[in-house]
Amino acid sequence: MAAAVSEARQWDRLMQLAKIGAIPGEGVNRQALTALDREARRLVIGWAEEAGAAVSVDPAANLWFRLPGQAPEAAPVITGSHMDSQPAGGRFDGAYGVLAGIEVLAALKASGQALRRPLEVVAWTNEEGSRFAPGCTGSMAWAGAATLADFAAITDAEGITYGAALAEHLAAEADLPRRPLGGPAHAYIEAHIEQGPRLEAEGREIGIVTGIQGSRWFTVTITGASAHAGTTPLSLRRDALQAALRAIQALNALMADPADVLRFTVGRFDVAPGSSNSVAGEVRFTIDLRHPDGAFLAAKASAIAETVQRAALPCAATLSQSFAAEPLRFDAEITQRIEEAAAALGHSALHLASGAFHDAQLVARRVPSGMIFVPSRNGVSHHPSEFTSASQLATGTRVLAAALVACAK
Amino acid sequence: MAAAVSEARQWDRLMQLAKIGAIPGEGVNRQALTALDREARRLVIGWAEEAGAAVSVDPAANLWFRLPGQAPEAAPVITGSHMDSQPAGGRFDGAYGVLAGIEVLAALKASGQALRRPLEVVAWTNEEGSRFAPGCTGSMAWAGAATLADFAAITDAEGITYGAALAEHLAAEADLPRRPLGGPAHAYIEAHIEQGPRLEAEGREIGIVTGIQGSRWFTVTITGASAHAGTTPLSLRRDALQAALRAIQALNALMADPADVLRFTVGRFDVAPGSSNSVAGEVRFTIDLRHPDGAFLAAKASAIAETVQRAALPCAATLSQSFAAEPLRFDAEITQRIEEAAAALGHSALHLASGAFHDAQLVARRVPSGMIFVPSRNGVSHHPSEFTSASQLATGTRVLAAALVACAK
Repeated sequence: MAAAVSEARQWDRLMQLAKIGAIPGEGVNRQALTALDREARRLVIGWAEEAGAAVSVDPAANLWFRLPGQAPEAAPVITGSHMDSQPAGGRFDGAYGVLAGIEVLAALKASGQALRRPLEVVAWTNEEGSRFAPGCTGSMAWAGAATLADFAAITDAEGITYGAALAEHLAAEADLPRRPLGGPAHAYIEAHIEQGPRLEAEGREIGIVTGIQGSRWFTVTITGASAHAGTTPLSLRRDALQAALRAIQALNALMADPADVLRFTVGRFDVAPGSSNSVAGEVRFTIDLRHPDGAFLAAKASAIAETVQRAALPCAATLSQSFAAEPLRFDAEITQRIEEAAAALGHSALHLASGAFHDAQLVARRVPSGMIFVPSRNGVSHHPSEFTSASQLATGTRVLAAALVACAK
Repeated sequence: MAAAVSEARQWDRLMQLAKIGAIPGEGVNRQALTALDREARRLVIGWAEEAGAAVSVDPAANLWFRLPGQAPEAAPVITGSHMDSQPAGGRFDGAYGVLAGIEVLAALKASGQALRRPLEVVAWTNEEGSRFAPGCTGSMAWAGAATLADFAAITDAEGITYGAALAEHLAAEADLPRRPLGGPAHAYIEAHIEQGPRLEAEGREIGIVTGIQGSRWFTVTITGASAHAGTTPLSLRRDALQAALRAIQALNALMADPADVLRFTVGRFDVAPGSSNSVAGEVRFTIDLRHPDGAFLAAKASAIAETVQRAALPCAATLSQSFAAEPLRFDAEITQRIEEAAAALGHSALHLASGAFHDAQLVARRVPSGMIFVPSRNGVSHHPSEFTSASQLATGTRVLAAALVACAK
């Protein structure tokens, strides 16, 4: 059946979808629960119906396509991703996972192969969280990690609430059958672009995602004393910028990881007063720390405060944690199905943890889950220049199809 | 005559002057060539006339007070400073130097002492450059370093030109006698707060200013590659923030000065995209470098580009110079008069170079010049909390009076 996956059809549909919300530089800006989102859904609904799938929508506006199995009452095998994008996003992040599912439906129809279990393709609502933060609200509601009431009061930049946007959206899709949140599910596999450089750097076609690394985000505030750059001797300064620099150096040493698995990033660095002829009185910088091993991550995180405070002397330093997510390990059986599928089709694969967040992280709370990555050129994503070739995408979809078939047996 | 300097009168007048443009926290916001500037001038004119000085204004709106000498045709001895302030400035920067001159006039009258040379007190226009940049336009025009036509088109934040503001100001002072720019001058001594911490730190009452250090300002741009903080291994990153950190470390080593005379400051540091979960793609930071020795300064400055470029690898780095001023050495005889005056009055003194710019820097182009510093509490200036005690200010004025008398003999 994997042979029935059409590289050309899948690419053509992705490019059609990318026209909805297209921005300069081959990018996409398609925010959740907007008219563009609804236009994209209608396009995909047409392709799903063409493949014989039944359409429905749940109360979180997650969009479902279902192909009945030979055992219609069996718990379904599910695949999918999301169709919303970053404000200056690319054509592949999320959209690929939904269209890979649509392509599996089409390949099943073309090959005439019947599955024992029902197959469902889902487009989760608001994964990116760009219009309504946080993201993954659709998969979170479906998995029971939160209720829609929890999100109702979140507002977008124009003051529109999530509750109002969701109601407007569901009213516009009132012609579509409804289904409840949750329900039986046997397995979930999400195909996605890697959004990192490893597959490309190591020359592999398929990423077998072992899990999603844990994350800890912090903000460090260093307080020194602003002073006149021309008059204040260096020995009498409490320069917050120089103290922050020493703190980051000390953190670099603390975070040194020969295995190169730990992700340590200082991405934001704000200086006050921020004037070229004034010594810095205060610096705030962020720490984004990620690792697949929760204990390792916790050990590193717990050493940050003391490391920073010691290095920042004679300046004062305070640390506040802004976000924490425990590492997730995907289901071993699902991971094995993906590995076997890649091997059977002769594709080179790499086991890796996902550095980014995905709907699969939420779905995994209810359903044995896994993910398949395809390479991202130069590791770039969340940018119009995000790119994966038609052939690389088709390879991912073939492995997805084979793994879904294995799960659906 | 120095004994006739009144600590109480000088302090009381400074506090009266500080009410004009007062801002919260005992600060002052009195911009050049505004109604507040004119109100301040009228107040000071009253005190000068009370001491028997003749008032005049030159075409740059510099305000002059003149006491005739026993040799009325001799070139005058001049003292003064400025009365405009930073937008959130203090009560002493500039204002002290003008009122110290006024106090010398009052002390001369009280003591009945006559000088051979005429004595002039000047309030230079627009030293701070906060309303119209650059600053020191009044002293620059007087010293012939520039012409008023050079400044005419400069606009303030509201689009008013320097030319229009100056014309409006001179019209409002049409009742005051006019004098030309330039003219004969025998010596210039400016009293000013230190704006740095050295006198306080070393427990000295008087700063004998040897010169004004040279300055070189640069902007460094480091270009790396922005990337996803969760997905990009550290070994594959070109992190512009980490490269900037290495560059500043290397600059710290280059600028190490056991004598602690070199001033090296990175005061501004801008990161793009500046998002906590994105590796920095570009960093721009400023370098403010100052030293009294021009050759030393030039040698350090010329090593910056290579130092930064080597340390920033694999990121690219470019350097651009935004400002350069050669060091100035004040006149040796004037400096000696100040030293002798401080010694004769029994005040402890420290020779030091000024880290900040002053009108004396321009005046010195035409006239043998020097400066006297009084301590700044915690080295703070350009801030409402700027402070020097009444007693410290009076000590400075006594030394100024004695040095002026010595020059006027």
